[in-house]
Amino acid sequence: MTKVCIIGVGLIGGSIALDIKSLYPKTEIMGVDSNETHLKEALVLNVIDTAVPLEEGVNANVVIVSIPVNATKKVLPKVLDLVPENTVVIDVGSTKEAICMTVENHSKRRNFMATHPIAGTEFSGPSAAIKGLFKGKTNIICEVENTAFKLQEIALKLFSDIGMRIRYMKPKAHDKHIAYVSHLSHISAFMLGKTVIEKEKNERDIFDLAGSGFESTVRLAKSSPAMWTPIFEENKTNVIETLDEYIYNLKHFKTLIENDDFEAVYNDMKQTNHIKDILNGLV
Amino acid sequence: MTKVCIIGVGLIGGSIALDIKSLYPKTEIMGVDSNETHLKEALVLNVIDTAVPLEEGVNANVVIVSIPVNATKKVLPKVLDLVPENTVVIDVGSTKEAICMTVENHSKRRNFMATHPIAGTEFSGPSAAIKGLFKGKTNIICEVENTAFKLQEIALKLFSDIGMRIRYMKPKAHDKHIAYVSHLSHISAFMLGKTVIEKEKNERDIFDLAGSGFESTVRLAKSSPAMWTPIFEENKTNVIETLDEYIYNLKHFKTLIENDDFEAVYNDMKQTNHIKDILNGLV
Repeated sequence: MTKVCIIGVGLIGGSIALDIKSLYPKTEIMGVDSNETHLKEALVLNVIDTAVPLEEGVNANVVIVSIPVNATKKVLPKVLDLVPENTVVIDVGSTKEAICMTVENHSKRRNFMATHPIAGTEFSGPSAAIKGLFKGKTNIICEVENTAFKLQEIALKLFSDIGMRIRYMKPKAHDKHIAYVSHLSHISAFMLGKTVIEKEKNERDIFDLAGSGFESTVRLAKSSPAMWTPIFEENKTNVIETLDEYIYNLKHFKTLIENDDFEAVYNDMKQTNHIKDILNGLV
Repeated sequence: MTKVCIIGVGLIGGSIALDIKSLYPKTEIMGVDSNETHLKEALVLNVIDTAVPLEEGVNANVVIVSIPVNATKKVLPKVLDLVPENTVVIDVGSTKEAICMTVENHSKRRNFMATHPIAGTEFSGPSAAIKGLFKGKTNIICEVENTAFKLQEIALKLFSDIGMRIRYMKPKAHDKHIAYVSHLSHISAFMLGKTVIEKEKNERDIFDLAGSGFESTVRLAKSSPAMWTPIFEENKTNVIETLDEYIYNLKHFKTLIENDDFEAVYNDMKQTNHIKDILNGLV
């Protein structure tokens, strides 16, 4: 792996770049980004070695596409058109079905691997890149059988080297599951933030009263709208389904309180406490 | 301050006990708890020095009432009945109006100080007690003018010694504000946990796909239903109001997605990003 190209030098792309730099110091890391400021920032921060146009970047051994999912649908076919036979192109988007469908009949489909590393923070851009972001985290790979053997090997070695566990899923199942554990969390946090901001005109009051509970529950409301809007668009059907169920549960909980049925309120929370064991992996 | 009595040796009461132990090593810390197991645990963990009946505990210089808010309404008048003239009784409950009203006409109202230290974790019981939990956190004091001067002084010195910032509010305003920044966060997290658990029958799948985003957003769903049910009951009106607004915002967001109005989806999130500055105290 002498050359790697990162298309989109933000939180995820930049963090992969930093891990590769530290693991393979001789590998040249090229950066491609439509945002000139980000590209310069990535150079200054030593996240990438060189800033190149897309046409040059595609000559790398590994091309990582780490841009918003709607942009991936446009850029990925073009990248596949241009890459040499032995280059593996990896996307890291948070939705998988639409991206896989976009290139399903591409003549170079076997050069592509669809992945979703479940890692990140609420920050964005090259300055958000962190070394070791993926250590111990899960990477979901979709339609692995559609990637050429040799290229599978290169990609899997990279993921293993940066410390990721691999799970294989179908794109449809991925999008459905991730709507619950990731997309819904983001909407829940954004709407919590919105509700509180709307209510509290004197913002200093929020800050004074907000404990660590509010801070962690609302944390994801700091996330990038440029990244999340296309995710909700791509995964519209699943996101709406999760929202329907979430709103239903909230309404039901509200009705229990209105009816003074606090035994049921207690039981609802008690059963949900089980999330503790699930998150501890004790199931 | 030679003797302190903690009524309810859980997360909050236990953490105050640990701070007092470390600040005033000569102070005797008595513990009162209706839960015998918790009382023994608090003794073994050295959170308290002695386990005593309520009738003995009330002879302390400072009595902290740190039990669920519905229990406080029952226990507090009884404690006030029994305490000597120079004892300050401090409650630390998450709702303030009902508690203040319960004792507003008590002949020893001046021995009482109503407070809400905005601090905690999702854990409960004596083993959840942490030294330094209150450092840098805010304590809301209600109706301070109804507490005797000398007793105000003792209580304020204690809060200052354990590192808390003080804010004064009326009980009604406290309950309204805290419904937004604390109670709604808890319901939002509990219902997120419930929605995901209901959906995902194979729990291992949740765990594999759940990133740190889900984990932090759902964290409060680990909280104690025994503590939170009475809070929602006491603060019913405000909690229902916050839930109505939260559900309205979620429905609106869902409608925007359904109508493919992703520009509005983007703007909704962009405006809420402002929570970043609020939480950083940059307002």
